[in-house]
Amino acid sequence: MNGPDRALDETRSLVVPALRKAVDRLDPQLRKVVAYHLGWVDEHGDPTVEDGGKAVRPTLALAGARAVGADPSAVVAGAVAVELVHNFSLVHDDIMDRDVTRRHRPTVWSIWGEPTAILAGDAMASLAREVVLEDTGTGAPRAALMLERATRTLIHGQVQDMEFEERGTVPLAECEAMSTRKTSSLLAASTVIGALLADADRDLVRPLWSYGIHVGLAFQLIDDVLGIWGDPKVTGKSNHSDLRAKKKSLPMTWALEQGSADADRLRAWLTTGGTTESEIASAVDALDRLRAKDWAEHRAADLVDAAKNDLDGTALVRDAVDELCELADFICARKA
Amino acid sequence: MNGPDRALDETRSLVVPALRKAVDRLDPQLRKVVAYHLGWVDEHGDPTVEDGGKAVRPTLALAGARAVGADPSAVVAGAVAVELVHNFSLVHDDIMDRDVTRRHRPTVWSIWGEPTAILAGDAMASLAREVVLEDTGTGAPRAALMLERATRTLIHGQVQDMEFEERGTVPLAECEAMSTRKTSSLLAASTVIGALLADADRDLVRPLWSYGIHVGLAFQLIDDVLGIWGDPKVTGKSNHSDLRAKKKSLPMTWALEQGSADADRLRAWLTTGGTTESEIASAVDALDRLRAKDWAEHRAADLVDAAKNDLDGTALVRDAVDELCELADFICARKA
Repeated sequence: MNGPDRALDETRSLVVPALRKAVDRLDPQLRKVVAYHLGWVDEHGDPTVEDGGKAVRPTLALAGARAVGADPSAVVAGAVAVELVHNFSLVHDDIMDRDVTRRHRPTVWSIWGEPTAILAGDAMASLAREVVLEDTGTGAPRAALMLERATRTLIHGQVQDMEFEERGTVPLAECEAMSTRKTSSLLAASTVIGALLADADRDLVRPLWSYGIHVGLAFQLIDDVLGIWGDPKVTGKSNHSDLRAKKKSLPMTWALEQGSADADRLRAWLTTGGTTESEIASAVDALDRLRAKDWAEHRAADLVDAAKNDLDGTALVRDAVDELCELADFICARKA
Repeated sequence: MNGPDRALDETRSLVVPALRKAVDRLDPQLRKVVAYHLGWVDEHGDPTVEDGGKAVRPTLALAGARAVGADPSAVVAGAVAVELVHNFSLVHDDIMDRDVTRRHRPTVWSIWGEPTAILAGDAMASLAREVVLEDTGTGAPRAALMLERATRTLIHGQVQDMEFEERGTVPLAECEAMSTRKTSSLLAASTVIGALLADADRDLVRPLWSYGIHVGLAFQLIDDVLGIWGDPKVTGKSNHSDLRAKKKSLPMTWALEQGSADADRLRAWLTTGGTTESEIASAVDALDRLRAKDWAEHRAADLVDAAKNDLDGTALVRDAVDELCELADFICARKA
């Protein structure tokens, strides 16, 4: 296995047992629903062979701890918490976006209904804070407050994402600010939470935060590329999902700003067009002629470089910095 | 003004400004939605003359602080947090229960839709923790952890409440356990959060917690009475709301256990009956013949006595204990 794969594997062996222990505290019904969402059981509660996602955020949490010279096994609570906050937001977002498929399986609300999905999300968010606050280390309160602010920022991002759907067009800068709130804030929180639990110096935490913000936006750009051009077999989402939802994703928003006939075509389609196969196909053609995919992938690559530069020349532990750089490449290497 | 009214008034003057300051941190859209839910503005964002609820939980928080000899003004963060957690649960519960009216006004989801209501609840829950965690006192982490556990218990209670709707009958003991989770846990958390923020001794916190649990169940019993027999003008809910929803409330659950023709009638109505005016009326008649209202009011009175006994003979500050006893009477004096 290469670096990132090894790191992700280490994370799973260290974090998943603690995550399962935390989820076991939930009442039987929500425990089953959350275990299903995390990929551990099927909808009947029977164990699955799925690995339950890439665990990118917990891996960042452990790497961030290593980067400040801390023992990853001492900050597992932080890794568990960011994974729970991430999944709280996924379960609630799926309700709001009416998404019926996630990770190749029916979404929680589509199986158990909205009330149960709302409660499952609420419970995961609450459990996340509980796990951090049970850490008796001196860094725990600071870590908990940071996680809370990141969570509120993520909620703000989702509010904007929904608001954008009501609007005709959205400037690219606004769209990037929204994505930074919705995606980067929790990736940055993940990268620093281990360091904060280890009571690291602010000078060491700051570059880790900036790294997380840059990687987060790159991650969202690739996610948006997959939402338009991704293979459903790989993404686990429905084909052209973001186009069917007429989502003002980053590539779409960029394309709309390229004063051209294709940009006008896309703008017209977004406002009045339908979502039949052929209409979706011609929207994809317009995006392809504008090379929106190239733009997004290049922008993501630039952000990954920026993330690496954030860690450069800092007092962070070298090996951990190398691991974070490999993780940044890995996170943004997902191809459509 | 009598004691409780004065206390509630003091609370509003001390807590509402801090609550408004906290809500001001939200993004403009959610800020408006939350301010509406709290009764400060109408749905267009224009100020109202409403006072935004009784503020029972913040009042308990300040009284609990006084009871351990602390300065209430030093624990306002705790009072703000419990009010935010309470309102987070109301906004999410209204979605799940499909309630369209709350405090004489349309509910958040019925005006802005479910996604916005989900996010408004999520944001209030997050803001509550943030406010507590920003308290730099030594008691804050303990207070935050207690609030988190109470929140999870409340969520567990709501899960059971929904599950009961699927079931034919529910034993009274189970129904009381559910109500204790759903209502008492946050009232108990409210009573102790001020004391915890003031870093009070466990021996002083324990009786306050027990008081809150007892008052909470009494509060729920009276709430259930109002849900069946309450005047919509007073309750702000629709007429016979709990009966229309065929809610397995405490009085209903008790009535079903009274082996009698009326109990059988109610059981039959719950399973197969309709909710026309006349069908609702005969359900009320059956409950009246069983004297379910008397049972609930007497049970509530016994619980209020138990709450007072919890505080009796403790080292808690006498005046504050008297205030808590008056509050217990006041909270459960709401008449149908």
